[in-house]
Amino acid sequence: MKIYREPLATMLDLVNKYTAQTVDIDIEQQVRTIIETVMAEGDEALRKYSHQFDGVAVEALEVSKAEIEDAYNQLPAELLKALEVAKANIEAFHKREIDQSFIDLDTTGILRGQKVTPLKRVGIYVPGGTAAYPSTILMCALPAKIAGVKEVIMVTPPQKEGIAPIVLGAAKLAGVDAVYQVGGAQAVAALAYGTESIPKVDKIVGPGNIYVATAKRQVFGQVSIDMIAGPSEIGILADETANPVHIAADLLSQAEHDKRARSILITNSEVLANAVATEVERQLNELPRKEIAKVAIEERSFIAIIDSIEDMFTLMNEVAPEHLEIQLTNAVEYMSLVENAGSVFLGPYTAEPVGDYMGGPNHVLPTSGTARFSSPLGVYDFVKRTSFMQFSKARLQELAPHIAVLARTEGLEGHARSIEIRFDEKADQFTFDNEEVNGLYGH
Amino acid sequence: MKIYREPLATMLDLVNKYTAQTVDIDIEQQVRTIIETVMAEGDEALRKYSHQFDGVAVEALEVSKAEIEDAYNQLPAELLKALEVAKANIEAFHKREIDQSFIDLDTTGILRGQKVTPLKRVGIYVPGGTAAYPSTILMCALPAKIAGVKEVIMVTPPQKEGIAPIVLGAAKLAGVDAVYQVGGAQAVAALAYGTESIPKVDKIVGPGNIYVATAKRQVFGQVSIDMIAGPSEIGILADETANPVHIAADLLSQAEHDKRARSILITNSEVLANAVATEVERQLNELPRKEIAKVAIEERSFIAIIDSIEDMFTLMNEVAPEHLEIQLTNAVEYMSLVENAGSVFLGPYTAEPVGDYMGGPNHVLPTSGTARFSSPLGVYDFVKRTSFMQFSKARLQELAPHIAVLARTEGLEGHARSIEIRFDEKADQFTFDNEEVNGLYGH
Repeated sequence: MKIYREPLATMLDLVNKYTAQTVDIDIEQQVRTIIETVMAEGDEALRKYSHQFDGVAVEALEVSKAEIEDAYNQLPAELLKALEVAKANIEAFHKREIDQSFIDLDTTGILRGQKVTPLKRVGIYVPGGTAAYPSTILMCALPAKIAGVKEVIMVTPPQKEGIAPIVLGAAKLAGVDAVYQVGGAQAVAALAYGTESIPKVDKIVGPGNIYVATAKRQVFGQVSIDMIAGPSEIGILADETANPVHIAADLLSQAEHDKRARSILITNSEVLANAVATEVERQLNELPRKEIAKVAIEERSFIAIIDSIEDMFTLMNEVAPEHLEIQLTNAVEYMSLVENAGSVFLGPYTAEPVGDYMGGPNHVLPTSGTARFSSPLGVYDFVKRTSFMQFSKARLQELAPHIAVLARTEGLEGHARSIEIRFDEKADQFTFDNEEVNGLYGH
Repeated sequence: MKIYREPLATMLDLVNKYTAQTVDIDIEQQVRTIIETVMAEGDEALRKYSHQFDGVAVEALEVSKAEIEDAYNQLPAELLKALEVAKANIEAFHKREIDQSFIDLDTTGILRGQKVTPLKRVGIYVPGGTAAYPSTILMCALPAKIAGVKEVIMVTPPQKEGIAPIVLGAAKLAGVDAVYQVGGAQAVAALAYGTESIPKVDKIVGPGNIYVATAKRQVFGQVSIDMIAGPSEIGILADETANPVHIAADLLSQAEHDKRARSILITNSEVLANAVATEVERQLNELPRKEIAKVAIEERSFIAIIDSIEDMFTLMNEVAPEHLEIQLTNAVEYMSLVENAGSVFLGPYTAEPVGDYMGGPNHVLPTSGTARFSSPLGVYDFVKRTSFMQFSKARLQELAPHIAVLARTEGLEGHARSIEIRFDEKADQFTFDNEEVNGLYGH
C-alpha cells in the first residue's frame, strides 16, 4: 500500500481526487429507453429484457409461496441460526429508530403537530449471482417491517437454475411478502410504475449495478429511493496501540468487495503504518478474492501518516467513509470528532464485518463520501410525516393581519381573502337555500 | 368547476390520470451541459449564463453584507412585524422536530447507538421575480439553523435593479449567512460542485422552475436535495356543515399560484358541491390573478361527490394532496384516516394560507402525489445519522461463528478472517520490532 506523509492540505486534495464522480450518458439513455418500454409494455417488456440481459425465459414473474417455503426449510441449520441471531440484533437496534408523532398543545385554541405514517408498499432490489447477499435482505426488509410497512416486495434477477434458495429463505425470514424474478433497470421501472404482475411501490431500496443505480436516479420523484450506492470504503484511524495484523485484515475485508473499493488507514504512528503495509501484502496473497482486493489496494487505497489526532479526524471527515474503525485508546471518547461516516466501529474487537452481519446497525450505508449528508438505511426511511394544525376563530383573528400583509406582499390576493372572508359577516349568513343557491350570496 | 358523481373506482382512475408525469429530454440535455460548463469554468460560467438567461451583467457574485443590512433596515414596519411573528411560530413548531442521538446500553460488553450530526453547509434556492417569496426563505433557513447547520447560503437570480430588498431582508431575519446572485441550473451546479466564489454545499433546498428541478435531480447523489417540487395542490374534505364561501376562497387561493395548480373538493353533500361551484365562479371573477386561477380551476380541478366518509378519505389519499383541509365536524378525529398529505388544516378556521405563512409547520411540502412517500421540509432534513458500536472481546467471540458462517456463505473469506484473526494467538504476539517489522510475523 502507498504510504503518504504530507502536509494536511496536500492530503485533503488527495482525498478529493479519489472521490471524483462521473456520469455515463450512454447508460443514461439506455436506461431511459428501458423504463419507457416497461411503462408502455408492462410484463411483456420485463420478459423480453430478462431474455435479452439474463438469458432466462421467465414465465411467472412471481416466485411461488411454495418455492419460498421449500427454500426456507432447506436452509442449513447453522446458516439459519446465524440469520436468526442477525435478525434479533438488527431488530433490537432498529426498534430504537422509530419516530413518534408529536403534538404541541401549548396554546389554547391552537393544536398543531406531526403524524408519522409508514409507507404502504416498499420494493427491495437484490442483485443476482454472487452479490445476492442474504444479509442485505435482512438489512432492507426488517427496518421496513418495524416501521409498519404493510407490503414489502422484492425483485432479483432471474437465474437459469431458479432464484438461489438462500435468497428466498432469507426473504421469508425477513418477512418479505412477495418475490419477483426480474432484475436490472427493468425491475426498477416495474417497481416505480407497476405492471400487470408487479404493483408499484412508494420506495425502492437496496444495492445494484450501474444500470440499477441509474434507473433509481431516473425514477426518483415518481417514487422515493434510498440512495445511489457507489463503491464501498473503510477508513481506519489507529495509533501505536493497535494491532497491525488486525488492521490489515480489516482493510482487506473491504478491498475484497470490489476493485473500486477503497481502504484507508490514517495513523500517527509510522511504525504502525509500515507494519500494516507489510501485513496487507502478506495477507493479500492468501486471500481467495486476491485478484479483486489487489486492484482495490493498489489503485484506490492508501495509508496516511499525520501527527495530530485532530488532523487525523479532519482528513477522515473529508473522506467521509462508509465504514470507520477507530482503533485509538478509549475510542468512544472520540465520537465527538466524527462528523462524516456511515457506521463507526470502536476499539480493537469491533471488526467491520461485525456490522456487516450481526452488530445491529444497518449495513446499507452512504458510500463515496455521501456520509457528508446521508444516513444509514433505517426505520426513519420507511415513514413519512404529515403536519397538521387547527386554529380557533380567535387565534386566527390574531394572526389574520400578519397573514394578509405577507400574502399581499407576495402578490397573492386570494390568499389574503381566504383569511379575511372568515370574518366577513355576509359569508357567515350563507344558507343552503336549494332553489336559490346559484348566485344568491353576496349580491 | 366540474362536478363528478361516479363510483369510487372511476374516481380513482380519474385522479391517477391527473397525476401523470413527463420528462423533457431536451431540458435534461441543456441542464447537463450547463452543469458541466460550471464544473469546468466556475464563476466565469455563472457570469456568462446570468448574462445569457437573466440579461444581467454580474460583477460580484456575493451580495455585500452592507446591502443586506440596508435592505433589512428598510423593511416596512408591518411587514417586519409579520415576518417576526411568522419566524416565532415556525421556530416554536420546528424545535419539536429535533432528532436525538441514542445509545443502547442493555448488554454488558456492547455499546451501540446513533449520533445525529447537523449538515455543515446548506444552500437555499430562491426563485426570482414575483416568485421570490420571503416566507419561503424563512421556511427553508429556520429549520436548518435549528438543526445546527453552521453555514446557510442562498442563491437567487440576478435582477437588473438588484436583488429585491424584501428577499435580502428576509434572508437576514432568517439567519442566512451569505447571498449569491445567480439562478437557474447554473446556481444549482455551483452549489453542488463549488466555484471560486461559491462554496459547495451538502444539501440544496427550495423551489424552482423546471430547469432548477432538473438540475437538482441531476446533481442528486453529489449532494442531497429536498425534493422535486411540482405544481401545488389543495384537497378539501367537507360535509354540509362547511361554509361554501370559505371553501371557494380556499380552492381559489391555491389556484392563483399556477395554471397547473389543482384544487379538489371531495364532499358527501351535493348541495355543498353546487354552492361551492357557484361561489368559485363568483369569487374567481373578482380575483387579480384570475387569468391564472381560471386555467387551474377549469383544466386541473374538480369536485367529487361521494357518499361515505371512508371513501372520501380513500379517494383523497390517492390524490395525496400537498395541502389537505378537513372541514368535517370534529375534524381532528379523522386524522387516523389521513394516509397521504403534506400538511393538514383542521376545522373551519384553519384556512390553508395559515400554513403558508404563520401556523408553524413548514410550507415546503410534497407535491403532485409525492406525499405518498415524502414529508414536509423539516429539521430532520438538515441532519444525518452515524451508527456506532463497540464490542468487547467476549461479545465478539459469541458472535464470531455466526459471522464466519454468513461471510463464507456470501463468498467473503476476508470478512471471516478479520473476525477470526482477533482470536489468533500469533496475531496477539505481534510486537513492533522496528528492525524486523517486515515480514517477521506469522512465518
